[in-house]
Amino acid sequence: MTTTAQNAQNNACDLILFGTKGDLARRKLLPALYQLEKAGLLAADSRIIGVARDAMDNSGYLDMVKTNLTTFLKKEPLDEAIWQQLAAKLLYVQLDLTQTSDYKKLGKLVDASKRTPVSYFATPPALFGDLCKGLAAAGLAAEPSRVVLEKPIGHDLASSIVINDQVAEHFKECQIYRIDHYLGKETVLNLLALRFANAIFASNWDHNAIDHVQITVAEEVGVEGRWSYYDDAGQMRDMVQNHLLQVLSLIAMEPPARLDADSIRDEKLKVLKALRRIDSSNVQEKTVRGQYASGFVSGKQVPGYLEEEGARSGSRTETFVAIKVDIDNWRWAGVPFYLRTGKRMPKKHSEVVICFKPQPHNIFHETYNELPANKLIIRLQPDEGVEVQVMNKIPGLGEHMRLQQSKLDLSFDETFKSQRIADAYERLLLEAMLGNQYLFVRRDEVEQAWQWVDGILNAWKNNNEPAKTYQAGTWGPVASISMLARDERNWDE
Amino acid sequence: MTTTAQNAQNNACDLILFGTKGDLARRKLLPALYQLEKAGLLAADSRIIGVARDAMDNSGYLDMVKTNLTTFLKKEPLDEAIWQQLAAKLLYVQLDLTQTSDYKKLGKLVDASKRTPVSYFATPPALFGDLCKGLAAAGLAAEPSRVVLEKPIGHDLASSIVINDQVAEHFKECQIYRIDHYLGKETVLNLLALRFANAIFASNWDHNAIDHVQITVAEEVGVEGRWSYYDDAGQMRDMVQNHLLQVLSLIAMEPPARLDADSIRDEKLKVLKALRRIDSSNVQEKTVRGQYASGFVSGKQVPGYLEEEGARSGSRTETFVAIKVDIDNWRWAGVPFYLRTGKRMPKKHSEVVICFKPQPHNIFHETYNELPANKLIIRLQPDEGVEVQVMNKIPGLGEHMRLQQSKLDLSFDETFKSQRIADAYERLLLEAMLGNQYLFVRRDEVEQAWQWVDGILNAWKNNNEPAKTYQAGTWGPVASISMLARDERNWDE
Repeated sequence: MTTTAQNAQNNACDLILFGTKGDLARRKLLPALYQLEKAGLLAADSRIIGVARDAMDNSGYLDMVKTNLTTFLKKEPLDEAIWQQLAAKLLYVQLDLTQTSDYKKLGKLVDASKRTPVSYFATPPALFGDLCKGLAAAGLAAEPSRVVLEKPIGHDLASSIVINDQVAEHFKECQIYRIDHYLGKETVLNLLALRFANAIFASNWDHNAIDHVQITVAEEVGVEGRWSYYDDAGQMRDMVQNHLLQVLSLIAMEPPARLDADSIRDEKLKVLKALRRIDSSNVQEKTVRGQYASGFVSGKQVPGYLEEEGARSGSRTETFVAIKVDIDNWRWAGVPFYLRTGKRMPKKHSEVVICFKPQPHNIFHETYNELPANKLIIRLQPDEGVEVQVMNKIPGLGEHMRLQQSKLDLSFDETFKSQRIADAYERLLLEAMLGNQYLFVRRDEVEQAWQWVDGILNAWKNNNEPAKTYQAGTWGPVASISMLARDERNWDE
Repeated sequence: MTTTAQNAQNNACDLILFGTKGDLARRKLLPALYQLEKAGLLAADSRIIGVARDAMDNSGYLDMVKTNLTTFLKKEPLDEAIWQQLAAKLLYVQLDLTQTSDYKKLGKLVDASKRTPVSYFATPPALFGDLCKGLAAAGLAAEPSRVVLEKPIGHDLASSIVINDQVAEHFKECQIYRIDHYLGKETVLNLLALRFANAIFASNWDHNAIDHVQITVAEEVGVEGRWSYYDDAGQMRDMVQNHLLQVLSLIAMEPPARLDADSIRDEKLKVLKALRRIDSSNVQEKTVRGQYASGFVSGKQVPGYLEEEGARSGSRTETFVAIKVDIDNWRWAGVPFYLRTGKRMPKKHSEVVICFKPQPHNIFHETYNELPANKLIIRLQPDEGVEVQVMNKIPGLGEHMRLQQSKLDLSFDETFKSQRIADAYERLLLEAMLGNQYLFVRRDEVEQAWQWVDGILNAWKNNNEPAKTYQAGTWGPVASISMLARDERNWDE
């Protein structure tokens, strides 16, 4: 048994799943729990307590969960034996989340001295306050209880402070686990290994060696029937404030002294604090807002954002953002981080590209006027992997050295090929149940990120420009390409 | 048609092969010429003029060459069509190499205005003087004529000067092509690409990033019936003075301003000049001499050096050398280059290992007391290739990062897998016929290398210690391991 499995067995929890009938629970959390059960990473006497407002008995709940699993388990059939083990842990509790008194039911059920109560808020943030109050009333807020919060934590700094305050009323920061599922990705963690276990990368990790960094999070999908929810948010709030800034922080942070939660989060926070403010004075130069018009994605026609079901005509919400981020600190002076994220892009494709500076002098000029610079590419999805692009000699005879760009791909490694890559939610649920906070976002990070993002959102509001349209199935407005072209650079395609 | 092939076609030569019946010509040169013919890299009207002292007519010569090819073509049968093309270029000339007048036969045959005369000296160096005199008398020494010289160029500095003077009497340095077949190896050339086309390596190529360098040239064979020839030389003269010092120079040299012959050779020479002198004062500490006793190589018993056929009892000649080389210049201060070469090692295995410094601080200490440092490994034989050893995260869930050492192997690249790697002699014959000197050793390099090697040889002579015995099939005397152990390092196995 691995140490992880042992730890899991020694950390029995009552995982209270608020919003168990919701999209996230059904698509992500329940399948993740199945995988953890399969991997022996759920303590034998842990329980999973599904909570929702609908009347439903246990067997009804089990049927629902089983149906979900059959639908949403990726690439594998439901294993009956494992399902039985998981089912034995499942309970359902009907609860009116707004009725504080109702939470007594949970209080009776849960004994913190036997199992650590871990409450997962897979509900709209508007309910977080009620949830915390109810849990407190039921005696489930005291340590060692934990709460796991799903995004979005607010839609701006002010509203995020309100939510964080509501939770902080009943839980200490050390009990609070804020989810950013990008922090659960295998390759995002591998980034820590690459940066801090390899001197050849560490010594090349600053303005001396790196020309610029690109972070792309491209979605192929549109709003998927969540038009009005999405329209209130937009791509900036939905993706940049959390996922892209978290990834940026991990790339840009100083080496933490230790791997513990606060050492890492302290360093990430320092990066967020060093982001150069973007406001009305520079928003034109530093950002691009886009909104998709109809077009073709993987061969089939798709409607424009304003033609989507439930769309409100005239909405100016952005479905694409590109930002040139400057980090004003010693390490990154003069090294732009270009962020880009959008819906209805040509394909689902997320990657970080570290573009190193070119060699100072080209001794191969007889054969090559220009040599491509080295790149370190971290693919986040769909197929997670890491590759280094280096130049090497093309084998063969010739009086001139003929070179080619080769990819040194860590995914070539047997371990990668053979092993199933765990979904981010499996990792995050496990870490929350084990009580490890290092993959969760601290309050000050959330608020610092909002402060910076608010600057851009307000600037956009003030200059009151419509989003630039781009055809669905393209890489966003031309302005996004121009932004790099002005710096004599290109997006890595 | 590639530019190389075009150039080859435009550079018709009369390749005069002195010693065409010798071991080198039969095993290496004639098969190499066959491969060049096959690749379309021999000019249609080039000729190959085999020269030896024995009476033999053309058809006899053709039969001999054909038999050689069938014997020594590696991994492929003789293609009759290609053989016919090659045969059409072959001529035989009987010549008493010591009779200057005899060379008139060649003079009549060769017309420098039609084809560039390229004389290949695949004979004992003792004959080089006669060969040059003869060629001069026959009017074949003037430009654009070239001579290709095989090693050994002398057995010490004094004797190498004698040989170089004899050749220089009739040929300018720009006409002289001194072979070191290691310079013809695919991966040795790739070393130039790796170093100078990749900023991530270039910026890590000095005492700041590199802890030490290892160069191993291990032979599985013994003296192969050449006992007395070998006994006069020993491993130091046979391998270190040429191959290992040439490879060391390419690794250690400053970036040349251009890729031309003299820019590169100037930089290699600077390295040789910067080698810290080894003499009686430090030879004990810096070198290990070994001689193999009987033992087992790949499962079968083999005799000791002194039991080999034709052995002279009591010989103290070394069959193994290990040297700790210090390069006293700005780039390499404090970075030892450990050289090791020997006969009757466990396997045929030549590689360069660049061992980078460990990361300054280990944030993974909870899981790993010590992290292995990065390595760049350049395999010279048997399977040429380049790999970078990096640490990355083992995929999987766990509250501690589990790391592993992965190999980023350039040989994974399709081009490498699909393509036949040309033998060093194919490349060197081609470059000599094309008139490119950059893969050939300049006189001052040879003499500088001898000067340094003489220091060691004399120190050994003076302290008059017998070579340390090692069992055949082992990696040499224990002293070789101890030499690194004293520096808290190990040979890369």
